[in-house]
Amino acid sequence: MQLLSSHRSFDGSQKRYSHSSTSLNCEMNFSIFLPPDALQASQAPRAALPQASNGGKVPAVYWLSGLTCTDENFSVKAGAQRVAAALGIALVIPDTSPRGEGVARAPDAAYDLGLGAGFYVNATQEPWSRHYRMYDYVVDELPSLIERCFPVNDRRSICGHSMGGHGALMIALRNPARYRSVSAFAPIVNPITSPWGKKAFSHYLGNDVKSWWGYDTTLLLEAAHASDHLPMLIDQGDADEFLAEQLKIERFIAACKAANYPAQINIREGYDHSYFFISTFIENHLRFHAKALID
Amino acid sequence: MQLLSSHRSFDGSQKRYSHSSTSLNCEMNFSIFLPPDALQASQAPRAALPQASNGGKVPAVYWLSGLTCTDENFSVKAGAQRVAAALGIALVIPDTSPRGEGVARAPDAAYDLGLGAGFYVNATQEPWSRHYRMYDYVVDELPSLIERCFPVNDRRSICGHSMGGHGALMIALRNPARYRSVSAFAPIVNPITSPWGKKAFSHYLGNDVKSWWGYDTTLLLEAAHASDHLPMLIDQGDADEFLAEQLKIERFIAACKAANYPAQINIREGYDHSYFFISTFIENHLRFHAKALID
Repeated sequence: MQLLSSHRSFDGSQKRYSHSSTSLNCEMNFSIFLPPDALQASQAPRAALPQASNGGKVPAVYWLSGLTCTDENFSVKAGAQRVAAALGIALVIPDTSPRGEGVARAPDAAYDLGLGAGFYVNATQEPWSRHYRMYDYVVDELPSLIERCFPVNDRRSICGHSMGGHGALMIALRNPARYRSVSAFAPIVNPITSPWGKKAFSHYLGNDVKSWWGYDTTLLLEAAHASDHLPMLIDQGDADEFLAEQLKIERFIAACKAANYPAQINIREGYDHSYFFISTFIENHLRFHAKALID
Repeated sequence: MQLLSSHRSFDGSQKRYSHSSTSLNCEMNFSIFLPPDALQASQAPRAALPQASNGGKVPAVYWLSGLTCTDENFSVKAGAQRVAAALGIALVIPDTSPRGEGVARAPDAAYDLGLGAGFYVNATQEPWSRHYRMYDYVVDELPSLIERCFPVNDRRSICGHSMGGHGALMIALRNPARYRSVSAFAPIVNPITSPWGKKAFSHYLGNDVKSWWGYDTTLLLEAAHASDHLPMLIDQGDADEFLAEQLKIERFIAACKAANYPAQINIREGYDHSYFFISTFIENHLRFHAKALID
């Protein structure tokens, strides 16, 4: 693991690393924010550790970004460090796809396939299957690395935006024992019916639509056992330019009702798809996760 | 004036406009954040206006950015909207130089001269003097435009970073009656002795060093009358990579002492020159300005 940059932020530390990923067969960058609690714990054990830390380690919220993003968009634009520092929570921010020489890319350099558009699935089709295994990377490899190398414990929550909202909800619904809570901003809740999802899934997973079902949040939610329900929070702007065609929150609201899934879904008047929307409500989301992470 | 973009943010509105500047002889972009108070006031007069608004208008903090920035860096990275919305203050964010076809640029595309590097002076030398008149633009033209077109009153404070910290301090010291308070992050306080300042001033103002003096914060401060002293706040990180060579805060501290100027100067341990530093302390700065703007 190689440290690429480190900036003090709200008395914590915003760091960026590269490492060699075995799931993705390439070098990957990720960003991590360590709150003041974690920095102090990693220097020396203290007599009285704050509430969030547990055995000298802090819990983590994993953030999954949307199309075209890297790990840097959220780090720079969301204003999350202030809240994470106050709550004593680490933020772990992976990239959105494999990168680098030899990694397949969309033939037309499309923004919604290939680089920056991994969709958090394990690709099974050529030329994608060698590198595009973001599901394994986010669910297993990255948390193992984080919990081995940083003062971060295995209390995890997961959150994301747009394509990353799809990733966060889908991953939490498939792995409820690995997360304490899940939230999303403007998620693609039903990718098997959205143009973005259909394009990506047909390339990564092939044309047999049955192979897509296990990555569709709405279908997964409908099948979830009540004992696996997680605290779930979603914010969706009603002025979001992608709402009608790509995001389809109304399908998810109906599915939650039908499945009796106690999700809290807020429709926010006048808000769009941008980081101005995310930065407005990120404090609510982190406080929501803190309740589940700190007991 | 043409609206380029508008995003809801903390129940206020983050907008970007272009307009034809008479000082700069080119089209200019600027960004403005209008807090919820201003939006409500512009729609309809309300019986009970909040404290910050005055006759339906809100005061403004002008933000001057550093080298290479446009009006968008601060809008996207500083996390200032949350605080400005809560305080009922507008944020006005100009670009850092004239732009566009016909505007002179550095022959080697240097980052510290020409585009993105206007240094907030009125250039007198060829080929710069036709467009590079950022001093007039920031002091006169932009506030006139803002106060004519938006629900913003003439209670102004000014703040900036690095080259923009130089701009804010220099402009406030030259125009104490136009501002209620001034603050800066990692300002170039003595540009006539810094490599950045010497390069820019020699191109924009010529080789007669006397013509530089009126744009040097340390010299201006030493000459300020006590009756013109403004509330002044400066934050400087001690891990700032430009501190020793370019910023030289120690000269300014000495000048404040010698001149009995009651500036509050905080040296922040471990903080660097980045927006991670700015976002950590922007709330302190906006609350400092609010005290002067709202009485």
